[in-house]
Amino acid sequence: MRQSVALHHASRLVNHGPTVLVTTEHAGRRNIMAAAWSMPVEFTPPRIAIVVDKKTFTCELLRASGRFALSLPVPALADLAYRVGSECGRDLVDGADKLARHRVAVFAGPALGLPLVEGCCAWLELRRIPEPHSEQAYDTVFGEVVSAQADSRVFAQGRWSFRDDNAALHTLHHLGGGVFAVPSRVVLGRLRPG
Amino acid sequence: MRQSVALHHASRLVNHGPTVLVTTEHAGRRNIMAAAWSMPVEFTPPRIAIVVDKKTFTCELLRASGRFALSLPVPALADLAYRVGSECGRDLVDGADKLARHRVAVFAGPALGLPLVEGCCAWLELRRIPEPHSEQAYDTVFGEVVSAQADSRVFAQGRWSFRDDNAALHTLHHLGGGVFAVPSRVVLGRLRPG
Repeated sequence: MRQSVALHHASRLVNHGPTVLVTTEHAGRRNIMAAAWSMPVEFTPPRIAIVVDKKTFTCELLRASGRFALSLPVPALADLAYRVGSECGRDLVDGADKLARHRVAVFAGPALGLPLVEGCCAWLELRRIPEPHSEQAYDTVFGEVVSAQADSRVFAQGRWSFRDDNAALHTLHHLGGGVFAVPSRVVLGRLRPG
Repeated sequence: MRQSVALHHASRLVNHGPTVLVTTEHAGRRNIMAAAWSMPVEFTPPRIAIVVDKKTFTCELLRASGRFALSLPVPALADLAYRVGSECGRDLVDGADKLARHRVAVFAGPALGLPLVEGCCAWLELRRIPEPHSEQAYDTVFGEVVSAQADSRVFAQGRWSFRDDNAALHTLHHLGGGVFAVPSRVVLGRLRPG
């Protein structure tokens, strides 16, 4: 059900504030973390800002490689999202990595070959746009999306469609302490009085 | 039901990616717009990044005054959120403003006196942190939260609590085209196998 998303629709994937799994890879080492703090900053070219603590192993790999990937976890991956957001990959001994430790199944991204997490509902690969000041002062990394994919059962024609029959594919939105909200209801704003 | 939120909990208000109403005021003029793109960047001091197109009237007032406010709309305000996100306040003639035009009821923020939107579920006032490059290159404005409030029926002790009995106070998450997701379901991530 995984399908390409046109790059001019890529911002829509994170428009509503989902928690993302950030994966990185450099020189044979890789890592995964969770991030609640990201947002699009531009539609075309599709650019995203994400907060990655400069002390993390993810930030080290991200800067060294100049690339990173985002996978959007679904309710069945709430445990994983909470766990990989709560431990540091650099501390693991013997070259062990967090993806192996948490038995995270991955597939290679189409543009950069970065590890993307199986079972998620959307995936993006990004090239870092070097902005040393924002990274230093606000842990804010800017990236340009170079590939975007989504599960067509929940995202099609540039739009999320959250319904009861695809509830297992909804996004997670971290409220804190491992509690995630799921956008399972939808309301429609009207431009003119109906 | 409006209560102060401790500043070290302010980031939690926007941790899960809600759409916000941005209000600004300068030299007798004021404006309101909706923004889907914002995120916390730091807990302490509480800092938030938000994307405000540099061509907008909101950005003009924000830069001139060095301050802005965020109000988090609830489902009953979906029409308002969509409408104020779709029209420019600078274009209104005769000094009319978008708040009056859309009959937006406001109250004064406790720290800066900025107009905050009645009927929302949370409110923040921020001082702009001048970052000309981020503003120019990415329309990304950084701000430091100087006051935070929330409706205690849905946010208490530093946490959102989205339940069926307070569904009218849930946040909105813009999916595009006036369709907003509501985080009406919650799942719990576990750190260890249960």
